[in-house]
Amino acid sequence: MKQVMVVRSDLKMGKGKIAAQCCHGCLGAYKRANPIKVKEWERSGMAKVTCKVGSLEELLELKKLAIINKVPHYLVVDAGKTQIPTSTTTVLAIGPDEDEIIDKITGDLKLL
Amino acid sequence: MKQVMVVRSDLKMGKGKIAAQCCHGCLGAYKRANPIKVKEWERSGMAKVTCKVGSLEELLELKKLAIINKVPHYLVVDAGKTQIPTSTTTVLAIGPDEDEIIDKITGDLKLL
Repeated sequence: MKQVMVVRSDLKMGKGKIAAQCCHGCLGAYKRANPIKVKEWERSGMAKVTCKVGSLEELLELKKLAIINKVPHYLVVDAGKTQIPTSTTTVLAIGPDEDEIIDKITGDLKLL
Repeated sequence: MKQVMVVRSDLKMGKGKIAAQCCHGCLGAYKRANPIKVKEWERSGMAKVTCKVGSLEELLELKKLAIINKVPHYLVVDAGKTQIPTSTTTVLAIGPDEDEIIDKITGDLKLL
């Protein structure tokens, strides 16, 4: 079981901003996940992975894949008070769900 | 209302590792928080802030302050499979709680 946060690397976000955006996504996807899978994930150590994509288009493609594969996910749209313009899509959080299912979506991505 | 993730800057963690550690903390402190305060935080936009300290000692001092001020918090001890040794304390997540209460603990810290 794992949860993956996919971050847009084409935005000018510092590491603190990235971390906060990932937290938004982590919590958002967690709340939408199947409680039974959440329990499994918690028992197995709550693995969390961060990956990156180079554009909004790639992030939205992954969101489509998450929908097709029926995987809980959360797209973070930042209010844009700091560092980036208002309503910028920054992160897609996927899961927690089984590794094999998540890998169908994010298996080819580079780690952040 | 806000939640603050305090990151140790003295560890050799990349930005992806930092983000994942903050996510652990975010979720851990969220689960321990007062549900009424969580609702308030959610209604007000779920502000999340990332700050830094330069040592484990400073992080543990903040944990003491969180206990004294009765603020929900979660200390992240990493399994250390990547980048850092096993059982390294990496992040302290504090809140969500009222800004004034959180600021008693983290008000003097620098942003990450």
